[in-house]
Amino acid sequence: MPASTVGKPIQCIAAVAYDAKKPLSVEEITVDPPKAHEVRIKVEYTAVCHTDAYTLSGSDPEGLFPCILGHEGAGIVESVGDDVTTVKPGDHVIALYTAECGKCKFCTSGKTNLCSAVRATQGRGIMPDETTRFHNDKGEDIFHFMGCSTFSEYTVVADVSVVAIDPKAPLDAASLLGCGVTTGYGAAVKTANVQKNDTVAVFGCGTVGLSVIQGAKARGASKIIGVDINNKKKQYCFDFGATDFINPKEDLAKGQTIVEKLIEMTDGGLDFTFDCTGNTKIMRDALEACHKGWGQSIIIGVAAAGEEISTRPFQLVTGRVWKGSAFGGIKGRSEMGGLIKDYQNGALKVEEFITHRRPFKEINQAFEDLHHGDCLRTVLKFDKQ
Amino acid sequence: MPASTVGKPIQCIAAVAYDAKKPLSVEEITVDPPKAHEVRIKVEYTAVCHTDAYTLSGSDPEGLFPCILGHEGAGIVESVGDDVTTVKPGDHVIALYTAECGKCKFCTSGKTNLCSAVRATQGRGIMPDETTRFHNDKGEDIFHFMGCSTFSEYTVVADVSVVAIDPKAPLDAASLLGCGVTTGYGAAVKTANVQKNDTVAVFGCGTVGLSVIQGAKARGASKIIGVDINNKKKQYCFDFGATDFINPKEDLAKGQTIVEKLIEMTDGGLDFTFDCTGNTKIMRDALEACHKGWGQSIIIGVAAAGEEISTRPFQLVTGRVWKGSAFGGIKGRSEMGGLIKDYQNGALKVEEFITHRRPFKEINQAFEDLHHGDCLRTVLKFDKQ
Repeated sequence: MPASTVGKPIQCIAAVAYDAKKPLSVEEITVDPPKAHEVRIKVEYTAVCHTDAYTLSGSDPEGLFPCILGHEGAGIVESVGDDVTTVKPGDHVIALYTAECGKCKFCTSGKTNLCSAVRATQGRGIMPDETTRFHNDKGEDIFHFMGCSTFSEYTVVADVSVVAIDPKAPLDAASLLGCGVTTGYGAAVKTANVQKNDTVAVFGCGTVGLSVIQGAKARGASKIIGVDINNKKKQYCFDFGATDFINPKEDLAKGQTIVEKLIEMTDGGLDFTFDCTGNTKIMRDALEACHKGWGQSIIIGVAAAGEEISTRPFQLVTGRVWKGSAFGGIKGRSEMGGLIKDYQNGALKVEEFITHRRPFKEINQAFEDLHHGDCLRTVLKFDKQ
Repeated sequence: MPASTVGKPIQCIAAVAYDAKKPLSVEEITVDPPKAHEVRIKVEYTAVCHTDAYTLSGSDPEGLFPCILGHEGAGIVESVGDDVTTVKPGDHVIALYTAECGKCKFCTSGKTNLCSAVRATQGRGIMPDETTRFHNDKGEDIFHFMGCSTFSEYTVVADVSVVAIDPKAPLDAASLLGCGVTTGYGAAVKTANVQKNDTVAVFGCGTVGLSVIQGAKARGASKIIGVDINNKKKQYCFDFGATDFINPKEDLAKGQTIVEKLIEMTDGGLDFTFDCTGNTKIMRDALEACHKGWGQSIIIGVAAAGEEISTRPFQLVTGRVWKGSAFGGIKGRSEMGGLIKDYQNGALKVEEFITHRRPFKEINQAFEDLHHGDCLRTVLKFDKQ
């Protein structure tokens, strides 16, 4: 039995983002023990999401360096600080970038999954006591990221930012529920609340978009159209439940727009559209492809800094609704158990997104994997110490 | 008893818009008898709405001339064409610019009050058989407008574009239910479905905005903020149920925006905001003044041609919803009876909007009344022939 690490700093491997546009530095860092209302997790698996790449690219105006990125991760609680009641050492857990305190104005509203408990400090890359738990071997502080920082073998998160799950659920699949799969699936079944026979179009068919597709299929949508400029996504779309696939670069008649094509395919437009691209022009297309009178368009993708969406107000006055979804509208602590069950029952595909596996030290290659059209998710495994 | 006019053309007074930006020509015209599925109405009262002025200004790219404007009107059915079953001669009626056929995809959806039955021809200023019922003394055809053309002592409308009402309801008040009052009240109680203790802000406090205010008050909103740059609207706002009034030109701290002011007044933003201005910059303010997580902004105002609304998609991703409302989401034929009852029971103020009364021949002055801050509605009465 190894000597207990409880209450002590831990030396472990992590990938530090020292600056935008630079490769991550895989190095040993020190992770402080958790303070009150904090949880230290031994991360077993983490995946790489486009939001990590977005911040690393320098496009995120709120990006802070040096930091430890990563927000799709699952592991086992190593120790907890004072006053932590919701998880205990040994629990299998998923880190949550959308916290759930259960007490704030947002959590008690019954209207949103956003939580204000740790929002201010999370956005500033620090823990609620205004300090960081990560330090490099020069003694420099390293910022946290999205309240998760799963690109470290050990991480410290707020007790409202972690959820215990059924220990029988594989942690590699569970890691994907920390962001992409939950975000897309929840957007379909919770934010949009797609109903039987509804028509749905999904712009951008990566992990998030494919998860929207499987949510729409789970609800019995009559038509589910995947839209992507990458033909490698076509088979994935059908695998996850799409009825149609459109490549706007190839499948439009001369002079036809994607909006016109979709309206033609659906007798007037869609009941629900989802943007999973982050491209504001596509967000407009998604809105305008909605059916007059009731079509709803849900923005999921994160746009580049300063970008704006636009449309003629007539689009809304004639009944279209423009909304958004963060983390699929899912409350991480109270609703994750249901998603895990859906996964265990076979209703929710998760493992199918793991197209690539690598040891953690190959994390920079995992960022490159993202740019390949056939990659949905690369899951990184921390080696046994 | 006068000789029957049934089946014959009628000579009567009307106000013809021969061209944009020109005064209306008050002259005698000929109104054809109604064809199948059409109804000829003797208009008793009509009010002037900003949409009439918008089209007359030439800013409406779909405006057609010569035409007979007017869409807030009430009167008595003079005669009906073949196959009309929903109204009969002598019925007191309101003309409906938003038809309700009860049979189309829209009417049967249960999701919208928009109806496609006569939409195509209505937009082109003609009746469903592609002809017009109005002619001047030179024999020239005159276009219809919004399926109503209430600026004529007699008008012909589609049978799906008229609703019979309780004959005990005064027709002057009833005329206002043809647009402004219904549009605002419905936007609050139906489109937004404001609930008890919700907070509401209304941008633009004319007849539509004040009707939103009274709808919010009827629902028990805890805070109802009227926003207008015209201080003459302040007392009206309070009379119709507002709890606060903000003049953005006078009531903001130095450097403070209206959005910041409203967020400060409501601990984070409003549950519902309504744009009743048609100004796309204000539409953006209205959205951004909504509470994160659940605030909804409803666009009612008609923007100038080519104008677009914009915002950062982050506003929607963090839970705000952008939607619109046409005719308050009210189905004219099946729901007007309820509004008339609300009015008769004193729950819905209507007569209070009639700030000016004029004989019909003073219609050009009625357009000028609109530009005076103390005018809510000028109701025009057709003189006895």
